[in-house]
Amino acid sequence: MHRMSERDLDLVRSPETPPAIPDLAAQVAALAARVQALDDVLAVHRVLVGYGLAVDAGDATATAALYADDCDVDIDGTVRFRGRQAVHDMVLGDAHQAILGECAHLMGPYTVEVDGDRAVAVGYASIYVREDDQIKPWRQAYGRFELERRDATWQITRRTSRALGSPHRSDVLGPAGS
Amino acid sequence: MHRMSERDLDLVRSPETPPAIPDLAAQVAALAARVQALDDVLAVHRVLVGYGLAVDAGDATATAALYADDCDVDIDGTVRFRGRQAVHDMVLGDAHQAILGECAHLMGPYTVEVDGDRAVAVGYASIYVREDDQIKPWRQAYGRFELERRDATWQITRRTSRALGSPHRSDVLGPAGS
Amino acid sequence: MHRMSERDLDLVRSPETPPAIPDLAAQVAALAARVQALDDVLAVHRVLVGYGLAVDAGDATATAALYADDCDVDIDGTVRFRGRQAVHDMVLGDAHQAILGECAHLMGPYTVEVDGDRAVAVGYASIYVREDDQIKPWRQAYGRFELERRDATWQITRRTSRALGSPHRSDVLGPAGS
Repeated sequence: MHRMSERDLDLVRSPETPPAIPDLAAQVAALAARVQALDDVLAVHRVLVGYGLAVDAGDATATAALYADDCDVDIDGTVRFRGRQAVHDMVLGDAHQAILGECAHLMGPYTVEVDGDRAVAVGYASIYVREDDQIKPWRQAYGRFELERRDATWQITRRTSRALGSPHRSDVLGPAGS
Repeated sequence: MHRMSERDLDLVRSPETPPAIPDLAAQVAALAARVQALDDVLAVHRVLVGYGLAVDAGDATATAALYADDCDVDIDGTVRFRGRQAVHDMVLGDAHQAILGECAHLMGPYTVEVDGDRAVAVGYASIYVREDDQIKPWRQAYGRFELERRDATWQITRRTSRALGSPHRSDVLGPAGS
Repeated sequence: MHRMSERDLDLVRSPETPPAIPDLAAQVAALAARVQALDDVLAVHRVLVGYGLAVDAGDATATAALYADDCDVDIDGTVRFRGRQAVHDMVLGDAHQAILGECAHLMGPYTVEVDGDRAVAVGYASIYVREDDQIKPWRQAYGRFELERRDATWQITRRTSRALGSPHRSDVLGPAGS
């Protein structure tokens, strides 16, 4: 959370007193960092929503491109795979092909925290599938994504998904607290 | 995706060396463009979410105001209409009035791309209706919206919606790739 | 909605004509205010999504911390309580503990309007619960949140929730218009 600084307020109140150029340059640099942080948060949201769209399109190449080459995916602690090629294979695999065209992967909402070239998103994935002309909730899960900026692109390096009812929801949501 | 430029880093590292005013002015102009882009992306999201709220309120005028005067709406390739008045009529029509007060039009998530005064949002619409005291998924669709900035407001110019199971999902999601 | 000003365009077109420092300072101050507004909108979204994550984690302390000390919560006009401690108690109460680990509180989407240190978010809350190995929509509601910035943090001061079918949906969505 960032609030207007005293200096900002001074500028608004008395623009007739010009600041020194170095002060202004420092303000511009600080603003640039805040704009970068906003860009990054939106970019991470876009990657995760784009994942849903790519798998629903059945586009294995586009899906895989959202993951890092050495990504680590852990679904409920039972399905685990590593690497972009495994993501590609998953999209073309029998399980996904069986629901393709009948499924919606709604990714979100998420809270996103960015720290330099790393980001963590925690939130939800809701998958719906049409069966017998009815839309049914097919999977509802808590999800945690780690991402890194590589080659100027945010890539998913680690994904942890825990379905409702999983005894391991704290892997995503953290301990219950009190 | 935008990263800190060499110049930005220089500013952070050595604020005691003031930049020339023209350089600073160019930085400010570049930042202003990035802030505008962020504003636009959030504004487009707001229009789409606001559409859901307006139809759920049964507010035909507010709903129609989100669409361009010459908008083109294509639902599953079977329902097609043009123009703001047709949107207004749809809200007041029998089909919508039958579920009014019992429905939730959840718009999103979307990926939004803005290019000047035009934008494209691709994502999902989930409609729930309460029947016999139960909440049921009523429609789940892939959606593509084109918007234009007109009179300083983002307006929906074209909407394409394809329900799960539609043979024409590629109209929204693009080809499956491989 | 903000568009590039004539001055912005001038800067882009002819950077060789440097602006006066006071003009540049005024531009930077205006940009800072716009960045602040973007930060605030994203922060409000984060609070609301974070509420869902905190209750799904069963973290009463984290949940309560998102509400103001004197918050006012109105669920369907039938459940009403005030104060952060009541939020804390709700998380630890029988009703929530009965679904803990089996529930997903999907908060959103919302439209968020920020005005200085106050904000209003209007949108949806969708709660899913797993029962007999099936995911079921448990509650679908329209929601209106008022928030205030206090101690440099956005806190929920008032929450109004109306389930589908409520005769009082206009408390959240406003009048139907025409």
